[in-house]
Amino acid sequence: MKIFPLIATGVASTSLNGEILAIRYTKIVSKSENADEYQSLESVHQQMEKEGSEFIKLSKKDGQIVQDKERFIVHKINQDEDAYLKLHLLSLRLVKPNTLNLEGIFNALPNVVWTNQGPIHPDEVEELRTKYDSFYVRSLDKFPCLTDYVIPNGVRIADASRVRLGAYLSEGTTIMHEGFVNFNAGTLGPAMIEGRISAGVVIGANSDLGGDCSTMRTLSGGNDVKISIGEDCLLGANSGLGIPLGDRCIVEAGLYLTAGSKVEVLNEDNKLVKTVKASELSSKDDQLFIRNSLTGAIQCKPNKKKVSLNDQLHTND
Amino acid sequence: MKIFPLIATGVASTSLNGEILAIRYTKIVSKSENADEYQSLESVHQQMEKEGSEFIKLSKKDGQIVQDKERFIVHKINQDEDAYLKLHLLSLRLVKPNTLNLEGIFNALPNVVWTNQGPIHPDEVEELRTKYDSFYVRSLDKFPCLTDYVIPNGVRIADASRVRLGAYLSEGTTIMHEGFVNFNAGTLGPAMIEGRISAGVVIGANSDLGGDCSTMRTLSGGNDVKISIGEDCLLGANSGLGIPLGDRCIVEAGLYLTAGSKVEVLNEDNKLVKTVKASELSSKDDQLFIRNSLTGAIQCKPNKKKVSLNDQLHTND
Amino acid sequence: MKIFPLIATGVASTSLNGEILAIRYTKIVSKSENADEYQSLESVHQQMEKEGSEFIKLSKKDGQIVQDKERFIVHKINQDEDAYLKLHLLSLRLVKPNTLNLEGIFNALPNVVWTNQGPIHPDEVEELRTKYDSFYVRSLDKFPCLTDYVIPNGVRIADASRVRLGAYLSEGTTIMHEGFVNFNAGTLGPAMIEGRISAGVVIGANSDLGGDCSTMRTLSGGNDVKISIGEDCLLGANSGLGIPLGDRCIVEAGLYLTAGSKVEVLNEDNKLVKTVKASELSSKDDQLFIRNSLTGAIQCKPNKKKVSLNDQLHTND
Repeated sequence: MKIFPLIATGVASTSLNGEILAIRYTKIVSKSENADEYQSLESVHQQMEKEGSEFIKLSKKDGQIVQDKERFIVHKINQDEDAYLKLHLLSLRLVKPNTLNLEGIFNALPNVVWTNQGPIHPDEVEELRTKYDSFYVRSLDKFPCLTDYVIPNGVRIADASRVRLGAYLSEGTTIMHEGFVNFNAGTLGPAMIEGRISAGVVIGANSDLGGDCSTMRTLSGGNDVKISIGEDCLLGANSGLGIPLGDRCIVEAGLYLTAGSKVEVLNEDNKLVKTVKASELSSKDDQLFIRNSLTGAIQCKPNKKKVSLNDQLHTND
Repeated sequence: MKIFPLIATGVASTSLNGEILAIRYTKIVSKSENADEYQSLESVHQQMEKEGSEFIKLSKKDGQIVQDKERFIVHKINQDEDAYLKLHLLSLRLVKPNTLNLEGIFNALPNVVWTNQGPIHPDEVEELRTKYDSFYVRSLDKFPCLTDYVIPNGVRIADASRVRLGAYLSEGTTIMHEGFVNFNAGTLGPAMIEGRISAGVVIGANSDLGGDCSTMRTLSGGNDVKISIGEDCLLGANSGLGIPLGDRCIVEAGLYLTAGSKVEVLNEDNKLVKTVKASELSSKDDQLFIRNSLTGAIQCKPNKKKVSLNDQLHTND
Repeated sequence: MKIFPLIATGVASTSLNGEILAIRYTKIVSKSENADEYQSLESVHQQMEKEGSEFIKLSKKDGQIVQDKERFIVHKINQDEDAYLKLHLLSLRLVKPNTLNLEGIFNALPNVVWTNQGPIHPDEVEELRTKYDSFYVRSLDKFPCLTDYVIPNGVRIADASRVRLGAYLSEGTTIMHEGFVNFNAGTLGPAMIEGRISAGVVIGANSDLGGDCSTMRTLSGGNDVKISIGEDCLLGANSGLGIPLGDRCIVEAGLYLTAGSKVEVLNEDNKLVKTVKASELSSKDDQLFIRNSLTGAIQCKPNKKKVSLNDQLHTND
């Protein structure tokens, strides 16, 4: 868990009453990646002065504000400025998923009506609706779309509404129409994503998530283990994953592997070695998971097939 | 089936030729919830006068109109004003799903091009496209998005394009990006919806529909039984449901339970009691459905696990 | 593979530097559908003159251009004008999927930020964002949405962001919210599509793709066989398909049939005839695929059930 003081400058969208609905940070300065926990804030002040941050008051709508972020972002979130800053840090790839304390983020973020005319307070929709020639609602949610705040380079996102601010997308990542990435989740290298990356889940380089595959979320339900996927892995279309995977693993299309599934482990000669819970196979490399189409049993074999992303599909320039 | 006379006032969007494409009702007055079927319409007229409804003619585009709804809404739908009124009644939570006669609604509703500039007749797109600096199509469908007409309080909808007008969403409902709610369908209490609620399907309070789970539709296909889900239920991610469920039931992630599936019923000691069609287990409480990961058989056990929604995820204010 | 010279006139959207980002073709004239490969271009020139095509230079933003398409479209794509023309030809139903050479299309198409203010170069987003009162990103992709370029008649598309330009949608096709159609793919007649039609996949008339069903893509992965579906077929919800199907076939809800799946073939009396790889059952008619819910085995039986689309759902006018 890194700890660092930051100075962030941005633009806030507010309700008619001046309540902050959302913040776009346009400048984030970190004093030092290696700053120790109790570093004096003096140097932060100095840097702020040097950087010439503007201080502009909130206007009634979409005014400019300055966030004097002289705080440690490992604090529990209790203000939405904190929440938005942390989401920016993730999506700007300044910090990796699961390295920030995001406890309380749901309470910190207000529910916002995201319209074609910008963020609006839910109580003000009917008042504002008639003021515009064209008005409609894109989303009614605590989290905005990533691309309204950050456009990561070298990335494709076929349907912008499917990736939340707070997603961490590495260069060379393609999110297809059926893909989804929650906040505090993402890809650590080039990847083809046509399935769902739940909050807290990270995907290794050169892995491929097939259409509509599912990675189990740790937010709801009693599941305490964080799901992750190593490098050069393939989740088949409509498959699902309830355990962490190592490198070069494949889950067959249509197979949902939960942590509690009993799995027949086979050797290279297709002989049964043992039967274990899937959770015992967590994080191991070179595994192929299938459901035997004659016996119905879930099986795990040594994986010898190389997964390689299609270059053509991943040229994102 | 309730029957009540209504007076509804709204705004209509029309084509260049004055054809009504869509109606937003801003005021709906019900004379009496308990009115009997043959109540005189006189009181409705009186009420209309008292309420001072405005009569404004349709202009070429987005004019005001008054709908003198002196009719019983259980009639077959044969005008789109009727269709839009019924969809509003559902989404305003004035009537529950499956209590209105919606026969003929597909024929009553015109196909509309929903653009960033409002509803447009399909034949007029090319003419109107060049009149705007910015013009694009959001949807080409008979039904609009819920949120363009009604914003229910205490609800989150991550992607507004996934919920149709006519959805009934109770306070405390969250529809995630992969969630979908058709018209005449919805939630009867707080719920986490990441799967698809087909037309006619209702979900009980505190139930959780996992990512991309499917509830069978009764609209197409020969399936005559309406699917419903009780309270405190969980449909796992990528699962599917072809029978009604009682309370406190779980369908394991990845399992598609059709009405015709043969199911091994086990007792608390995991002993086989009988083998039945899933349809025979309809609407019963406290059932857990899994696919045995070694034998491939679908099994039903007594469910002892309590499903509880994550409070953090369901704070929708 | 047809070969024909074309004259196409359109409007290009460009970056601030004049780079072409996207082209909308408003007029495409084919000299002759039966022109032989080496036809003189003279008649094309004559027709151009006769048609009175305007030549207007590109302005800095969204200027008009004329595309003098005096070329054979079977050439390898190496300019985006070519790519956009081919995508239009497909979506205007002038050519069927899999009849054009689309090699190199990913390299030919630039990555574009599709905003509510039109197509924008990724490097110019931050500069342009502040120039508009309202600005947001719809997609960050090489392909635009179909409906921003072509509105096919007799078609419904519930969520326009799910169908790419280059999709071939026949009259009577409904794409529901969960449906998806890639470029060079589509429907050859009326169809209900609630699942994903991958690039290269075509669906026969009166077939029904259930919610979130998957058709295997041939673009990535080592799968060389093009998936197609015949007439009067049904893919159940959450099912998947890795082989081509003939006419009147059904894949049960939730079953993922890969080419390598071993399948028990049963006769009309439910007696086992043989066990084969699914790929050996490719393109045959009247097959019903299920997973036996007691043994877990994938089985293929003669299909006697008639699939018929619900007329009400398919009235697209």
